[in-house]
Formats: sequence, C-alpha cells, structure tokens
Amino acid sequence: MKGLILKEFEKGLTVEDLTVPKPAKGEILVKIDSAPINPSDWAFLRGLYTSPKKLPVVAGFEGSGIVMATGNDFFSRRLLGKKVACFAPPAGNGTWAEYTLTYARTAIPLKEKLSLEQGSMMLVNPLSVIALIDIAKKKSSRAIANTAAASALGQLLNKMCKSNGLTCVNIVRRPEQVELLKKSGTQFILDSSSHTFKSEMDHLFKQLNVKIAFDALSGAMVSQLLASLPKGGEVMVYGALSEQEMIVPHRRFIFEDKKISGFWLSKWINEQSMFTLLNSFNKVQKFLCSQHEIKIRNRMSLAQVIKGINTFPENMSEGKILIKPWKYLS
Amino acid sequence: MKGLILKEFEKGLTVEDLTVPKPAKGEILVKIDSAPINPSDWAFLRGLYTSPKKLPVVAGFEGSGIVMATGNDFFSRRLLGKKVACFAPPAGNGTWAEYTLTYARTAIPLKEKLSLEQGSMMLVNPLSVIALIDIAKKKSSRAIANTAAASALGQLLNKMCKSNGLTCVNIVRRPEQVELLKKSGTQFILDSSSHTFKSEMDHLFKQLNVKIAFDALSGAMVSQLLASLPKGGEVMVYGALSEQEMIVPHRRFIFEDKKISGFWLSKWINEQSMFTLLNSFNKVQKFLCSQHEIKIRNRMSLAQVIKGINTFPENMSEGKILIKPWKYLS
Repeated sequence: MKGLILKEFEKGLTVEDLTVPKPAKGEILVKIDSAPINPSDWAFLRGLYTSPKKLPVVAGFEGSGIVMATGNDFFSRRLLGKKVACFAPPAGNGTWAEYTLTYARTAIPLKEKLSLEQGSMMLVNPLSVIALIDIAKKKSSRAIANTAAASALGQLLNKMCKSNGLTCVNIVRRPEQVELLKKSGTQFILDSSSHTFKSEMDHLFKQLNVKIAFDALSGAMVSQLLASLPKGGEVMVYGALSEQEMIVPHRRFIFEDKKISGFWLSKWINEQSMFTLLNSFNKVQKFLCSQHEIKIRNRMSLAQVIKGINTFPENMSEGKILIKPWKYLS
Repeated sequence: MKGLILKEFEKGLTVEDLTVPKPAKGEILVKIDSAPINPSDWAFLRGLYTSPKKLPVVAGFEGSGIVMATGNDFFSRRLLGKKVACFAPPAGNGTWAEYTLTYARTAIPLKEKLSLEQGSMMLVNPLSVIALIDIAKKKSSRAIANTAAASALGQLLNKMCKSNGLTCVNIVRRPEQVELLKKSGTQFILDSSSHTFKSEMDHLFKQLNVKIAFDALSGAMVSQLLASLPKGGEVMVYGALSEQEMIVPHRRFIFEDKKISGFWLSKWINEQSMFTLLNSFNKVQKFLCSQHEIKIRNRMSLAQVIKGINTFPENMSEGKILIKPWKYLS
C-alpha cells in the first residue's frame, strides 16, 4: 500500500510503499476513501502539534473508508464491510494512506445518507463544535463569539449554535469572508480588518451579552477579544492560525476578572463518557445529513498532496482539501 | 487639616490645606496615625490602578487612627474614640491626610495588643493573603507558588500558608532576597535571576504538586510560571510590579489546559459575606499580634513623602514606608 510519510517536521511528505498491517484484537483495517487536511494536520507537519506520534509516520488524524479486516472480537467484527469515519490511532500511522489500521472504538459507522466524503470530515471539526457548544451551555452563555468564522468549523459552529438556541458572533479576517458568510445567511459578522472592528465588537458583545469567545487564531486577536468582553469574560483558545504569541495587559485579569483558557479536542474526548460520545456522533451525522454540507475546495491524490500541501493556508474558507489515496489524479 | 493631594497622574503630590469633613449617617472621622504606601497606591499615583476616584483627591487606600467623630447612628457611634484600621472610601479622599472621612462599615476596631502602626497595614495585604489562601483551598491545592515573595504580602503569605497546612514556593528576584527570606526561616525559595531558576522551578512544582501560582509581577514571569506548572495549572495575577505585558504561547492553553486569571481585593471583598469578612479581620489581627510583625523600613511626614515617594520601588523587601501625617519629621 502507499502512504504519505512525514520523516522530519517541516521537511514535507513523501509517498512510500508500506506493508498492509493486520488488525489485532480491538483493531480494524480501513480502506481509506477520503481524508481531510485539517489545521491540526498542518500544525503537526511542522512540529507545532502535541502528539505522541514518533517520526517517520503516516500523517492524517481522521478519514473515512470501508472496513476490510478486523481483529477477532465481537466489537471489531461487527464493523466488517461497513462504511466508517475513523480517527487515526493516537501514536501510530495516520489516514493519509491507502489503508489505516486503527481502533474499532474510534470508528463510527456512517448512516446510509452520509457520503464517505462528508463522513471523512465528521470527527475533528464537528466534534469540536459540539464540545464548544457544550462548554458554552455549561457556562450558561446565551451568546458566544468565534474567530476564523469562515472556516469549516466556524460555519458549522454558527449553524449548530442556532439549532441549540445560542447566538454566535462570527469574526472573520477579510471582507470577502463577510460576503461569503452573508450569502449563507449568517447574521452577526465582524471583519477584523475593518477600522470600525473594535467599536462594533464592543457594541455587539454588549448587545448580545457575549461572555465567552472561542479563538482559533491566537496572537493579537486574544487581547482584542479580552478587551471587548465584559468583566468576568473568558477567551478560550482552540487554535493558533496566526502562529503568534498572545500579548496581554495585566489589567484584563486583575481589574476586569477575565480569563484565558484553552480547548483541545483530544482532552475533551478523553473526559466524555462513551454515552456522550455516541450521542455526539449521532447528532453530528444527523446534522450533516440534513442541514449542512461541509464544502470541499479540492481533491488531491497522494502524489498531488506533496506539492499541493503548501496551498493549504490559502483560502481555507473556500472549503476543505480532501485526500483521495486511491485516485491517481494527474 | 493637611493632606497629600494628587492633582494629575504621574505629576507628584502636594500638601494642601483642607476643611475637616463632618461625618454623616454611617460615616466616621478618623484622626490618622499611620498609613502605608502600598503597590496599589504607587500604581494609583501613576494612573495605573482602576478606581472610581476623581482627581484632585487625597491619596492612600488604607490607614489607622482614632475615631474622633461619627454619624448619628448606632453602628457608627459604637466606634467613637476607638483605635481602628480603615479603608478610604472607594470614591473619596484617602488616608494620606491628618483626617479621613470614611464608612463605619470599613473600619475595624484594633485589639489592645495591636499597635496603630501594625494596624495601619492590616487590611490591603493581610486580607489579600487570606483571600489567596481561601482560593487555593477551594481549588484543593496543597501547595502554591508566589512571586515577589520578599514583599510584605509575600512574607505574610508564606507564614499564613504554613499555619493553614499549605506549602508555599517563594519566588524572589535577587540573591539578597533569598538571604533575607532564609534568615526568617523560609523553606522553599527560588531566585528568578539564577540561571538554574527554570529547572529548579520545574523540579519543585513537580515535587510539591504546585497547581496554582499567584503572581504579583506580570510580564515575563507569567509565561515562566505557566511553563513550569503541570497540565491544568493556573496563574492568578494579582499585581504588575514589572509593569510589563505578558507574552504567552498558545500551546499553554490548547495542549496543556492551563489558565490565566486575575485577583483583585476590591472584587473579592464585595463577594464575601459580612461574617466571612469579620472572621478574616479577626484572623489577621490575631496573626499580627502573635506570629508576625510587618517590617517598616521608613516613616515619613506628609512633606517628606513628596520627595521620598520616588524611593518606593527600591528595596521594597526591606519593609513598608509608613506615612505619619501628624509628625513633622525634618
């Protein structure tokens, strides 16, 4: 089988021939149909993501495909032949390959109506969205803010907020992204490149009573969010697309009782009961079947990824890049 | 009466003649014996402290003295002629004057054994210490860290931790301060100017299981503390002696689940019941009577403060500067 191997951080990927692994007890072998490139993959490739994976390793944290072989236990065998979405194993080879060996417990059988392509993107982003909404609700927030709001995660978050009775302030970085979100009927949109951004954000946070802001950017945005939030407000950082450190004046903490905290999907998953997780997967699938289609901007073969990966940070709001290991697109 | 007036931030103080005010219902007139210069006063003089006070105003947040007149209500009258420690009223003239008009509810009668000088410093710092210990206990911490640990607050915190069954890691900024703390029997001391500081802090935080660090410095120290704390750790900022912004990498929040939050005594006081506060004042007085004497490095008349205030940031660990409005020291 062929797989996209990362030998050294920041040194790019190579396609290599690998032995197809055999599933042991609790494991399944998935023939990968599609695997997205997520911001977390992009961070991983450059050594900016905390992971127990040791190099060289096949990259890719999630994907979808057909279960071709399983370990000899009931829990794994019930998945044989099924369409599934799956996480790569935390410490092993990932989903950017023709086959992935992973744990049966991290694979979700896909509903008939959900395509393998949509299913390949249903874990990392949609689960994060469910987690963020869960966090906002536990903090009794009726309104939240989110940055990088034109991203796949951002757009899904806005929609799922609506169906959960929450209002979302969507912060984007460019005027084109405002237009993009307007077209899809998004209501509260702020453009951080606008010279009226700060005053509009102050106004909207007050009007809607936004007490928590989720941030995918880090860097300067964190102190801007902190400044606009009311006393007692919190910025929860879940991404670092700006790749900048955050610079924060002490008064936000001492006199304004604000907080910076973090969100990491891996940790959240480990803290949930099996019941909550199954329930979440179910919610996500229903939502993707009926109310939201994640946009795909490009499909790439393994060979195309090697060159094409560098276009990842451009135009992320136009949709996901999907890797198709079995398609030898020229 | 004479008082030290601040007319404009960062422009220094002047001694001015003022009318002695008359207490209304709920108010008392205190003939000031002593008033300390605290870091919060120093910040206020330069416009760096959040306060509803409007300039020009007499500076000084706390002090001690004798109650000379009161409003015509039982609660105030019971204080007449008593030695008290008091807060200045939140929005009015402060304690750096011959007399202060303040609210009876913010005045604490002093025990026979406690001197007016020690009593003048018993509110801001000791209450903060009680609050920080309360916060640490509520978070089930058995060990804490504190920066600027050679300060009056720091030394008191270390001692009160001991008597509350908590271990305190005392972080200072200079080798002389290590010696100073060693002399008074302090156990866990780290010097942030030492080249082994980071590794020693890592080691000590792990060994003692320090999960929360209280920080009086802001700036670079915050990211150093965050780096050494274990996953889930928290830095609670209560001061900004460095006067620097803090620069923090996002990984502390996302992958390490750490937090930055703030502590402000004014807010804490407003959140406590009268019972908790009276109980806290009682604890503080007992402690100051029997186990700890706050060091005084210098006494100044009102006139001396005008020149001497600039020496405030130097050698803070040698003790407090007390203002004595009725002493015309040359």
